[in-house]
Amino acid sequence: MRWVRFAADNKQSFGILEGDQVLEVRGDPFAGYERTGTRRALSAVKLLPPVIPPTFYAAGLNYPEHAIAAANKRGEVPKLPTAADIGYRANNALTGHGDPIIIPADASERVQYEGEIVVVIGKKAKNLSEAEAMSCVFGYTIGNDVSERNWQTGDRTMWRGKNTDTFKPMGPWIETDFDLEAARTTVRVNGQEKINFKTNSMIFGIPHFLSRMSRYLTLYPGDVVWMGTEGAAENLKHGDVVEIEITGLGVLRNPVIREGA
Amino acid sequence: MRWVRFAADNKQSFGILEGDQVLEVRGDPFAGYERTGTRRALSAVKLLPPVIPPTFYAAGLNYPEHAIAAANKRGEVPKLPTAADIGYRANNALTGHGDPIIIPADASERVQYEGEIVVVIGKKAKNLSEAEAMSCVFGYTIGNDVSERNWQTGDRTMWRGKNTDTFKPMGPWIETDFDLEAARTTVRVNGQEKINFKTNSMIFGIPHFLSRMSRYLTLYPGDVVWMGTEGAAENLKHGDVVEIEITGLGVLRNPVIREGA
Repeated sequence: MRWVRFAADNKQSFGILEGDQVLEVRGDPFAGYERTGTRRALSAVKLLPPVIPPTFYAAGLNYPEHAIAAANKRGEVPKLPTAADIGYRANNALTGHGDPIIIPADASERVQYEGEIVVVIGKKAKNLSEAEAMSCVFGYTIGNDVSERNWQTGDRTMWRGKNTDTFKPMGPWIETDFDLEAARTTVRVNGQEKINFKTNSMIFGIPHFLSRMSRYLTLYPGDVVWMGTEGAAENLKHGDVVEIEITGLGVLRNPVIREGA
Repeated sequence: MRWVRFAADNKQSFGILEGDQVLEVRGDPFAGYERTGTRRALSAVKLLPPVIPPTFYAAGLNYPEHAIAAANKRGEVPKLPTAADIGYRANNALTGHGDPIIIPADASERVQYEGEIVVVIGKKAKNLSEAEAMSCVFGYTIGNDVSERNWQTGDRTMWRGKNTDTFKPMGPWIETDFDLEAARTTVRVNGQEKINFKTNSMIFGIPHFLSRMSRYLTLYPGDVVWMGTEGAAENLKHGDVVEIEITGLGVLRNPVIREGA
C-alpha cells in the first residue's frame, strides 16, 4: 500500500495511492483513518513530505565507501563507525517531492545530495530485540540528505550544514510493501546517473539500529529514521534537477535553486 | 499568563493557570483556543511537558563557566564557542514536572543536571533581525538537560548521552510575562543549592541566537530553544530530587530513579 500526504482545496490530508488516483482519508495511517469518497488524480495534488515525524532520526555514516570518502576529503584516516549511534535532523528542513531545494546565497559551492532509504515507524516501541525490531516498521520512503559541506564540518553543529530550510526532501510516498534485499538506490542529476548502490549494504542494518535505539529511546508512530548514503557526492548547482530512485519506492525529484542566482 | 498542558479524565489539554486553578481550553495557545467552563485544582491534574515542539533546539555551550568546566574535565584547553551554532534534542526524552528521571541500569555514575531557561516560539518566523527577534517569542519555561557524560563524550552522537527517555524534564508551565534581565537560575538537589547564576549571562543572548537561526531556518509555533546552563554539575543518584528554579518561572522538580536500584 502506498500512503501519500498532500495539499488540495486549502487543506492537508493523507491519502492512499491507487494507480494514478489518490483516495483521500480522514485521520492518518498511524492513529487511525477512514476512507472518504474523494478521489483525485495524483497529478492534481501537491505532494507533501509523507509524514512530519515526532522525532527525525538519521544514521549519518552507515555505508563503507561514503565513510571512507568523507574521511579522505578531510585528510583523515578513514575510520568506520564502531557502533550504531543514531543522529538527528530537523523538521523545518523537510520539503516534498517536486519542491525546490533552495541554496542560501552565502552557501559555498559544496552543496551535495545524499540519497537515503527512510524507515517510517508505525508502532510505539521500546526494548525491541533485533529479531523483533522490524515489527515496529510501518513502511519506507526516500530522503535526500542535502548537505553544505563547509558548514557541516566548520560549524560546531550541523544546524545549517544539514538543516537549512528545504535541505531535507522526503517522499514521494510511504510504501508498506517493500523488498529491502532486492532494492538498489540510484542518484541522478539532470538525468545522468551519479551513484548506484545496493540499498541494504549498510554497515549497521535496520534491525540493529532500531533494536539499539529502542534500548534507550521510545520509538513513536510517525518517527522516521534516515539510514545514510553510499559513495562520494558531487556539487549541486542552480538549475539542476536531482532524483533519488529506490527500487519499489519510486523517485524523489527536486529542482535546485540558488538564492540570488 | 501561565499556560499548562495537563492530563485529566483520560485526555490531554492545554489550560490557563489562574492562582491554583487550571482553566481548561479547547485548542492550544499557538493555533488558537477558546476557554471552557472546566476548572480544576492544579494539584488534581498531572502536568505534562507544556509543549511538544515541532523542532527541539538546544544551544549547548552558552555560559562561560560551564564551557570552561566542560573543557577542563576533558583535559582540553577551554575554548568558548565563537558562533551561535544551535544544536538539537529529541522529543522522546521530554517528561513533565514531577515525573521521574529514569537512569538506565547500564549508565555510569556520571549522570548530571543542567538547569536551563527555555524559549517557546509563538509565531512562524524567518530572517528576523536581532531587533525583531523577540517578536516571535511566546513565553518561557524551564528545562533540565540531563546528561550521561560518558555517553555524551564517548558516542559518535549525543543520542543516549542527552536523549535517553526522561532525560529532558520541561515545565512546570509556560510564562508569557517574564523579566529575563532580573532572573536567576538556581539548581537544588535534595533541597541543597548547587548552582545559582544570572539567567541572562549567556555567551550569545536570545535575540542573537534567534536572529542567526532564522537566517537559515524557519521557526514554527511551539518550537523550543533551550539556552544552555552555567557552572559545573554534580552526579545525580537514585533517590535524589532535583529542582530547577528560575525567578518568575516557578520550579521544575523531578525525582531520580536508577533502573534496578
